[in-house]
Amino acid sequence: MKFLIVGAGAVGGYFGARLAEKGEDVTFLVREKRKEQMKKRGLRIQSIHGNTTIQAKTITMEDTGLFDVVLLGTKAYHLENVIETIRPFIHDQTVIIPMLNGIAHLDRLRKAFSTEQVIGGLCFIESTLNEFGDIVQTSQIHRFVFGELNGERSERVKKIEAAFAGTNAMIEVSDSVLTEMWHKYMFITTMSGVTTLYNQPVGPIRELPSGEQVIRGLFAEIGAIMRAVGAPIADQVEEKQWKQMGGVEYEMKSSMQRDMEKGLPIEREHLQGYLLKLAELHQIQAPILATIYTNLLFYHPESS
Amino acid sequence: MKFLIVGAGAVGGYFGARLAEKGEDVTFLVREKRKEQMKKRGLRIQSIHGNTTIQAKTITMEDTGLFDVVLLGTKAYHLENVIETIRPFIHDQTVIIPMLNGIAHLDRLRKAFSTEQVIGGLCFIESTLNEFGDIVQTSQIHRFVFGELNGERSERVKKIEAAFAGTNAMIEVSDSVLTEMWHKYMFITTMSGVTTLYNQPVGPIRELPSGEQVIRGLFAEIGAIMRAVGAPIADQVEEKQWKQMGGVEYEMKSSMQRDMEKGLPIEREHLQGYLLKLAELHQIQAPILATIYTNLLFYHPESS
Repeated sequence: MKFLIVGAGAVGGYFGARLAEKGEDVTFLVREKRKEQMKKRGLRIQSIHGNTTIQAKTITMEDTGLFDVVLLGTKAYHLENVIETIRPFIHDQTVIIPMLNGIAHLDRLRKAFSTEQVIGGLCFIESTLNEFGDIVQTSQIHRFVFGELNGERSERVKKIEAAFAGTNAMIEVSDSVLTEMWHKYMFITTMSGVTTLYNQPVGPIRELPSGEQVIRGLFAEIGAIMRAVGAPIADQVEEKQWKQMGGVEYEMKSSMQRDMEKGLPIEREHLQGYLLKLAELHQIQAPILATIYTNLLFYHPESS
Repeated sequence: MKFLIVGAGAVGGYFGARLAEKGEDVTFLVREKRKEQMKKRGLRIQSIHGNTTIQAKTITMEDTGLFDVVLLGTKAYHLENVIETIRPFIHDQTVIIPMLNGIAHLDRLRKAFSTEQVIGGLCFIESTLNEFGDIVQTSQIHRFVFGELNGERSERVKKIEAAFAGTNAMIEVSDSVLTEMWHKYMFITTMSGVTTLYNQPVGPIRELPSGEQVIRGLFAEIGAIMRAVGAPIADQVEEKQWKQMGGVEYEMKSSMQRDMEKGLPIEREHLQGYLLKLAELHQIQAPILATIYTNLLFYHPESS
């Protein structure tokens, strides 16, 4: 089974390396500069689950080849470029698994390729690239979940599961991957929204009574939007998410917040913006979400 | 008619000086340090309506004397101190006119003194103290409005009006001063709220479609709260305030925002906080107001 990992960043790079470490046939689709870097240093992981250095197979967009599974480990704002870049490497039976946050990319991918080729995926990991391009993975959780969007335990999913079996990471097939994707979407939209609005880690916000009111209010707005579009979210998921936020480390920052601190692009339109569009379409009031989105509009990475 | 101006800052100092300039009997109640400063330099005004230097009469809290009209030109967070400080200078017939923003101080003053002694007041002026303690007044409007809270054109109001007649400022008696106070309260709570939340002048916020949504949403929340408590606000005042905000200079900042930039205390509890308390009392949803108030809680002037 030939895997193509699109991007060798903090997410795709990590899970791809774990898969390669186990001996699967893994190739990374990267840009020339990253290819050179990986050639010189190998693909290195520093992780509390064990360090490793992979002599990774890499290709760039000029190369050729066909793959059975394509894992998308890129940022949402690169999606359109990625779609065009991966086209030559995909055949009729290739399965495309996005690892992106949010939900808007699913429809886009299904339109760009075919409904059947795209399955669901999401991951839970805290990782970053250091100055040498090494992947630094810092907390207990390194989990990747995938599955058919209709929840079916299909033959192709079983094959992919078998390929992942025994990797040094938590890889799971889910029969409700779409629900999990929506749930995560709700959580990170809220988490990134309030932490960037207040320029604070999560702890000081959630411990204020009015901060709790804002967080719960935002969960409620997003829940109302998701239900209006028929998203398969669980009953009372908002309450569970508030509890989940209570369990997050006090000093935890969102990755969007860390990206803003570094002057990097953010997934504003893919996360908050898309939900706000759905809210307008279905005439759902989302005042806190609009307040947060407006704040993100004042962030201009290209000028920072 | 003996006037006592409490504070000789950018607001009370300005209108008090204009009244003294005309020849009325005006005394400023100030702290020792300000007294010394005013003794050395005089009370100086730099204004587009004309500069002036007043050899102002000053007293401090150790002095004695009784006054007919007391104008409160202090910040809301000094209200409790001010109440105790001015007690010795007030007799049964003294009229107290607050010039503070907001509305919560009215009840507090009427309780501390008597219902009859407190009338309504508000002003519209852009002014600040420079490093020498001079008052710098920079835009066309220098307007002070006062009147009985029930709108009556009483004898005492007519006397005060007569004393103010001919001063180099716009001084007006209003038969709807309470309505004007609530309207101004709505405007500055919104203006200071959004400009401090986004750390932007008003122009860039109001020109964004989602910024307009936030501003109008906040006006609507505040309008709902004010109507729930029976405030005498005008029908469709929210729409008028949105238009008024459209007429404000693009680069205009709120005074709360300028105070935050200087690390000074702000009137958070008096403005946003009090409205939010009323909202809770009457179970009105005010998500944008709560989002803004939470942001202000992260401002700690004592530590900056």
